[in-house]
Formats: sequence, C-alpha cells, structure tokens
Amino acid sequence: MDYQHYFAKRIADLKSEGRYRVFADLERQCGRFPVARNYRDGQVHEVTVWCSNDYLGMGQHPEVLAAAKEAVERCGAGAGGTRNISGTNHYHVLLEQELASWCDKEASLLFTSGYVANDTTLSTLASTIPGCVVFSDELNHNSMIEGIRHSKAPKHIWRHNDPESLDELLSAYPKETPKLVAFESVYSMDGDIAPIAEICDVAEAHNAMTYLDEVHAAGMYGVSGSGVAERDGVRDRITIIQATLAKAVGVVGGYIAASAALVDYVRSFGPGFIFSSSMPPMVAAAALASVKVLRKHPEIRDRHQERAATTKRRLAEAGIPVMPSVSHIVPVMVGNAALCKQASDLLLNKHDIYVQPINYPTVPVGTERLRITPTPLHTDEMLDHLVKSFVSVWDELELHKVKAAAE
Amino acid sequence: MDYQHYFAKRIADLKSEGRYRVFADLERQCGRFPVARNYRDGQVHEVTVWCSNDYLGMGQHPEVLAAAKEAVERCGAGAGGTRNISGTNHYHVLLEQELASWCDKEASLLFTSGYVANDTTLSTLASTIPGCVVFSDELNHNSMIEGIRHSKAPKHIWRHNDPESLDELLSAYPKETPKLVAFESVYSMDGDIAPIAEICDVAEAHNAMTYLDEVHAAGMYGVSGSGVAERDGVRDRITIIQATLAKAVGVVGGYIAASAALVDYVRSFGPGFIFSSSMPPMVAAAALASVKVLRKHPEIRDRHQERAATTKRRLAEAGIPVMPSVSHIVPVMVGNAALCKQASDLLLNKHDIYVQPINYPTVPVGTERLRITPTPLHTDEMLDHLVKSFVSVWDELELHKVKAAAE
Repeated sequence: MDYQHYFAKRIADLKSEGRYRVFADLERQCGRFPVARNYRDGQVHEVTVWCSNDYLGMGQHPEVLAAAKEAVERCGAGAGGTRNISGTNHYHVLLEQELASWCDKEASLLFTSGYVANDTTLSTLASTIPGCVVFSDELNHNSMIEGIRHSKAPKHIWRHNDPESLDELLSAYPKETPKLVAFESVYSMDGDIAPIAEICDVAEAHNAMTYLDEVHAAGMYGVSGSGVAERDGVRDRITIIQATLAKAVGVVGGYIAASAALVDYVRSFGPGFIFSSSMPPMVAAAALASVKVLRKHPEIRDRHQERAATTKRRLAEAGIPVMPSVSHIVPVMVGNAALCKQASDLLLNKHDIYVQPINYPTVPVGTERLRITPTPLHTDEMLDHLVKSFVSVWDELELHKVKAAAE
Repeated sequence: MDYQHYFAKRIADLKSEGRYRVFADLERQCGRFPVARNYRDGQVHEVTVWCSNDYLGMGQHPEVLAAAKEAVERCGAGAGGTRNISGTNHYHVLLEQELASWCDKEASLLFTSGYVANDTTLSTLASTIPGCVVFSDELNHNSMIEGIRHSKAPKHIWRHNDPESLDELLSAYPKETPKLVAFESVYSMDGDIAPIAEICDVAEAHNAMTYLDEVHAAGMYGVSGSGVAERDGVRDRITIIQATLAKAVGVVGGYIAASAALVDYVRSFGPGFIFSSSMPPMVAAAALASVKVLRKHPEIRDRHQERAATTKRRLAEAGIPVMPSVSHIVPVMVGNAALCKQASDLLLNKHDIYVQPINYPTVPVGTERLRITPTPLHTDEMLDHLVKSFVSVWDELELHKVKAAAE
C-alpha cells in the first residue's frame, strides 16, 4: 500500500466535495473582543468574529486575566504531571470545590477538555458497571457518542428530545438493569433545548441514571449560571452534570459534577482522567475566577439573551432563513457544503465578518449552515453591519430567502 | 440497582487493596522548583518534589512565563472555539510550524493533550485505512492502547522492545496489507529505551508505517532535543512522531509530526481533534517559547543526564534497589502496593520528600514502585537529603536492600 497516496487521495476527495476545512488564522485582541486580527493571503485583516464559543466574552474579562497572570507568576506554566503524579495543584482543588458548589453537587472532577470529560466518564461508567445499558439522544455530540461506543455497552438511540421514545426503549429492560440516559441541554448546532424534567420523569420511573451535557449552557442559564438544569430547577434529579470551561467560561477544560462516590469512582477508574497531564495552574486559576464572576452576574446572561433574540429578529426581518432556536445560538440554514463555504468566504473577504461554515461531520450532509453566536459584546453597529452583509451575500449567491420567519 | 452503593463498594475495595489514590495537593513555587508547598492535614508544608514530569524545570523558565503573560495580555484567556470554528489562534499556527521544524517533518498537528494525540491519531489511522492491522509493543502507554482499541482494527502485541517478535508477527501478512507499528522511545515506568533503528529495519521490510511516542523523550534527547529518534539519527525513518508539551516542555498539550498529507488527513478526520476546543493562546505561546529555548540549549540536557546518573549511582551505593534504566528515569522497586504507599507517606510526612507511589493500573500488580525524576534543578544538597531519607525509610519499613546495584 502507498500510504501517502492514500492520504492525498482522501484529502482530494474532501476538496472536490467542498468539505475541506480551512481554518481561519486569528489573533484575538484582548479588550477588543469580538474584533480579531485575521492572517490571510500574507496580510493581516481586522474582522468581527460572529461564531466564537467564548459566548460571553469571559476570555478577556479583567478578573480572569489577572488570575491567569497571577498563577503564572506564582506557580509557573504547566502542572508538571498527571493529577496522581505531582500534577495536582491547589488551584485544581479550589476549582473542583467551586464547580461542585456551582452545580449544587457533592463533588466535581476536572478533565483536560469537555470532550475528554464525556468520552472518559461515559465509557468508564458504561463499561465498568456490570450489565449497564446506555440510552443516547440521537443528536448527542460526537464526544458522547465516542464515549458510549468505547464502553462497548449495549446502547439504544432515542428520538431527539423525545421522552416517549426514551420511555419505549427503557421499557424493554427490567428495573434492576443498570441504565444510563445520556443527553444534552442545549444542542449547539440547532439551538434547541431538551425537556429535562420530562426526561427525568421517564428515567426515574425506570431507575436509570441521567447524564446531562451542559457544555453549551454552563455560564449562560439559571440564576447563578450553572446551566439549564438550574434554570428548570431539576439539578437534584440529574445524576451527572457535565460541562466545559472552554465556552462561556472562556478558558479551556471540562468537568463533571455528581455525588462524591460517583466522582471518586470516575477519578479512580477513568483512563482519560488517570493518564493525562492535568491542566496548568494558570488555566485552573483563570477558570476559577471566571466561574466566580459568572455566579455573581446574571446581568451578563440577560444581555446575552437580548443580543441573541435581537440578532434572530433582525435577520428574520431581512428575510435570512434563521432556523428556529430557543437558545442563544442563531443557526442560518444554507443546505449545501459548497454554497455554505462560498457564503462564509464572501462574508470574510468582502465584509470582514467571520462566520465559519459548518459542514459534515459536525452536521448532517444537506444541512450545512452558518452558525452565528452573538455575545454581550456585539454592539448594535456590529449587528447592523451583520444584517446588511448577510443580505448582500444572500443576493450575490442567490440563496433562498424567507418572507417572515417566526422567531 | 443501587448505583451509589455500587460506587462506594468499588472504592472501598480499592482502599482495602491499598490501591486507593490520594493526590498530593501541591502549590508549585515559581522560581523555587523543585520546591513546592504541600497542603495536607489543614497545614501547608514545604516539600521537595522528586517525581515531577516537568523534567527540565521549563515550567518556570523566564522566557516561558514571559510568553504566557504576553499572550494573556494580547489575546486573553481561552481560544474561543474548536480549531475549525474560530479557535485557531496565530500562536497555534506558529507552534505547529516550530514543532514540524523541530522534528524535521513537513507538518505537525496540536492536540489538547498527549493522551488525545495518541488516542485520536491511532484510532483514526487504524479505523479509516481499509484493512489496516496494528502492531503494538506490549508495554505501550494506556493512551496508545485505547487508541488502538477504539479503532477496532485487528491488532497484534509484540514482545517489549523485541524487533524479532515484531518481525514474526508482521510476517503473517502480505506486503500489500496496510500496517501500523506503534511503540515508545522511552518507557516511562522502567526507563528503558527502544531499539528504534532495528524496529525501523523490520517495519520497512514489511512496508509498515511506524508510530513513535516520544512523550518521555521530547526536549531531552538529541542535539536539538526533539527526542531519541533525533539522537539515533532515524527521524526520517519514522512515519509519525508523537509527543507532549506537558513534560519536558513544561506546559500542556500534545502533537504529532509527520508528512503534510498524513497530518492533513488526521486534521480532517480525527474526531478527538475536530470536536475539541483548542488550547488557549497562552498555552501555545508558552510552549512555543519553551521549544525555542530547548532547541538552543543542549547543556540543559547534559545537566539533566548527569543528575539522573548521579541519583542512580548514589542510591545504588546506599543499597536502594534502583531498577536498571538507561534514561533519565530512576525507578525504585518496592513490589507491593501497601508498602509502596507507606514508603511514600513516610518520605512525605517525615522527610518532606514527595515521590508518588506508582501502582496498578499504571504498572502491573506486584511491581509497585517509587519513580524518581531528577531534574537539572535538583541540587547536591537535595540529593544528599534524598539518599539519607530513602535509607531511613528502607530501614524503618525493613524493605529489601541490594549489595552493589550496577547502574
């Protein structure tokens, strides 16, 4: 076999299908978010980022930056080991206490990423609890799917956000069978939100554990911001809350929050936790500072929701096909990989607006879209410019418009 | 099923087997490495860390810290997204160029950790190259084992560091069959080093790709420090070099370096790469600064090797059973989980020396050990104290001594 030829061929296929990913080379500008420098064609351009997962701009919050710098000065750069072998820094301990308290759970555990938190926790629980069966929402994120797959446990896929479908599948098993129901609160590509209480009703009736991914909700929903489970008053009904420190918290890393026994179990048996170097003290310190700010400031969340609602309304009024979304995510359907890339390129090159095209495998083929994430720091002027630019691109590419899209 | 009862029971079992892990709560002291503050029993103690994977103390190098702080001031805390969706920062681009050049390869790719680099790259290659068969050294790290397992590709385990065993297994397949030979350069728990050239001879004869994990070698071997493959002059014979930024580089994160086509392939198809938020600019900037320092300063590596050799010699002279090791790692065999923990506890509580006990699943049951990692910053006085303390603990616990251990 000619390996290099095989790799080159597969890449050429991606290109011909319009699915080849070109990463925008950005330089974030602290204090000027969402404005960033964009390196392209040998030049540096100033662009407005409209697709960041730093949903609240916490990545440039003064208290977060001060905490990061203080930790660098105090403890240096890296943690120096896995959590077990010299890599537990006091900031990890404080951050885990803060996250547990934030989620109103007994304990929490840090991972290098939200991806690893999902992969490790799901695979560890489902593979080591004898006879465990997993029930997974059909639109769960890749990291959950991989974790479930890696467990090799029997699994069933329930219809998206449909408690009846879940109930039907759970009913095939006796109450004694260990069961794990895995789902997300906010689905990041469509912006819809799970009916958590109803799902808990069903899970409890079958004595199933519940695993809730709040990656796109932590920091943004609930009075203290811990997620949709807090907003809906159902945190005590969720067995395991999982989320990330890389999105609304503005740093990097993942976590679970659950009972002390469950957390200690994953801590003791999860390979992706045990065998990985821990996050640098500067990362843990920055995340800790960010969570503390987020808990105290619901007005950041109010402004965020207002910006998202206004963006949806303004785009819809201009005939741009905003997909229905009850969250802060504003997806605009294009439905074709090549056109989606062209629209994104035009926005960037002609209008200095950066919205990455979302294509397969992140969304199904035929549902390629532009996914806009307004933040509290996007101004009215930026929004005017966004709407005008979208209309111009839609006209130039003759994309489908809608008459009066409901919000 | 009573889930909480099950978790509590499994934790109780670990405790009764002496395998329950207690993390040392440390606060690294920038500028004073390897001295750290240790939070325990409600007090703060000053300890000397002798088990850090910050092998060269780069985690506190002034240029590394300056780079981290500058990046925080310039770009803020987090990267704001996955590499594809707004999360590629210019520091990532520069770091990938630097790592490729360091490893003398066409391209490199960053991951959130070395664990994820192994898991993602191995599972992606072995699962997507049709008919690929994997050949794995029997002592490969958990992250490689998991990656191979996740690929579901057929696999064969060859005897540790034994090219003949590899040859035998490869010979069962025709030359056309795609093959991937996965191994490490420095094995971190025993401190032995792979015969890379001989393994390449065998792999090339069978047209197999080679995947070399240099996690415990990058920064420490070869004139410019890129690893044992550089020291042995065989980098061009290795298909994929993998390593970490969390150990000798002193920060966090993982990477692969390979041909441009292979790197683009993993970039385009590896779920653990695609679906994870990228490392913060401050992390990439710190790692970039560290690699630049390491490339220019072989004297750091000379001092490191001298410290390791002196530690081995001094401990052996004192009758402590140092395991044979040709690398910078100094493992001391205890062979029993409970005794190993007791020795570590005594060293910490009585002598302010922190050496974590290494137990299952990191090493096989019955080979529990203390693993010492001397750095260039461990002084002669610290070494005197280490030897005296080990002897005292060995006497107190009546552990096995040796007469004259060869180095």
